[in-house]
Amino acid sequence: MQFASESVEILIEQFSKLPTIGRKSARRLAAHVLKMPKKEVSQLATALLEVKERVRACSVCRNITDTEICIICSSSKRAVDMVCVVQDPEDILALERTGEYRGTYHVLGGVISPLDGVGPDDLNIRSLLERIGKPDSEISEIILAISPTVEGDTTAFYLAQLLEPFGIKITRLARGIPVGLTLTYADEATLSRAIAGRDVMSEP
Amino acid sequence: MQFASESVEILIEQFSKLPTIGRKSARRLAAHVLKMPKKEVSQLATALLEVKERVRACSVCRNITDTEICIICSSSKRAVDMVCVVQDPEDILALERTGEYRGTYHVLGGVISPLDGVGPDDLNIRSLLERIGKPDSEISEIILAISPTVEGDTTAFYLAQLLEPFGIKITRLARGIPVGLTLTYADEATLSRAIAGRDVMSEP
Repeated sequence: MQFASESVEILIEQFSKLPTIGRKSARRLAAHVLKMPKKEVSQLATALLEVKERVRACSVCRNITDTEICIICSSSKRAVDMVCVVQDPEDILALERTGEYRGTYHVLGGVISPLDGVGPDDLNIRSLLERIGKPDSEISEIILAISPTVEGDTTAFYLAQLLEPFGIKITRLARGIPVGLTLTYADEATLSRAIAGRDVMSEP
Repeated sequence: MQFASESVEILIEQFSKLPTIGRKSARRLAAHVLKMPKKEVSQLATALLEVKERVRACSVCRNITDTEICIICSSSKRAVDMVCVVQDPEDILALERTGEYRGTYHVLGGVISPLDGVGPDDLNIRSLLERIGKPDSEISEIILAISPTVEGDTTAFYLAQLLEPFGIKITRLARGIPVGLTLTYADEATLSRAIAGRDVMSEP
């Protein structure tokens, strides 16, 4: 049995496509939408469309942004000699919450994972090499802040080898992070310790 | 710290207004939307807008519908001598799942609750009286399928008194339903028993 309204059923269908939202939650959300003022529903719909319309990758670090260059890369308060390499934009949020790091970032957009068909060419590695290789580059340290999973470690070692010829310091987050845990879900204290105790992978 | 994209932050804000979705879930949903194909996002946005645009109350029973009269009221297979009075459209779904009931419905749109400022005039009671009072009405029984909470019981007793002058049978669901539970979350078996064992509140 379904609701006697096709449009409500379509909305339930759409909601249940989202992660962590099952059939029952989708029905509850749809029932809530029915009670919401029309204006609020249209704000939600607009927000969804705006995200797809406006969000793009920062031309420097590939972080998500609404502008050509993201607020971190365009900030004069950030140290330009350090680049912290992360998997996803969400990881930047996690690191920023520690208040421990004042450098810039570079978003890979994933990790090397042969099983999922993700190779080095699918990641934002070329743009990272270009950043470091620029004649006016002030980068003196690359921090590999990649989740310590099997794929993450593979990616970190691959990058460490690739970056060695540049003769700059390459570090990775200290193993304060519980191994196997995705970076996004690490707590502030653990992440703070991991940044402070980062270990050297290559030094000029 | 926020995402370096204002439109993503707005979407997170909008998501977290929905029930059962906290800040963390909202962030995860927004991250998912970023990865979704544009077409799917626009389907979700359209579904939201369509619901507010198309859904209305059935002119007979006040159930939600996209048409003037809902599919239950317009079906020739439903018994027109029985009307089951429920709180919300969701309760119709729960009752239909039992496969036990073949009559029609009437949606009150809530229960009498002085604390929330809901009085009898805020509910679809007048339209129920009009249905029963019509010269060509074939209604011989009203089943009050209202959640057995304090407010629900108050509403049931209020309706039973109000409907007594019509000289028709008035029943309510048997107390098979665990007292205090909202009708929507009752399991099929309990609801089936409750319909079969409904007790008479007034008889002509």
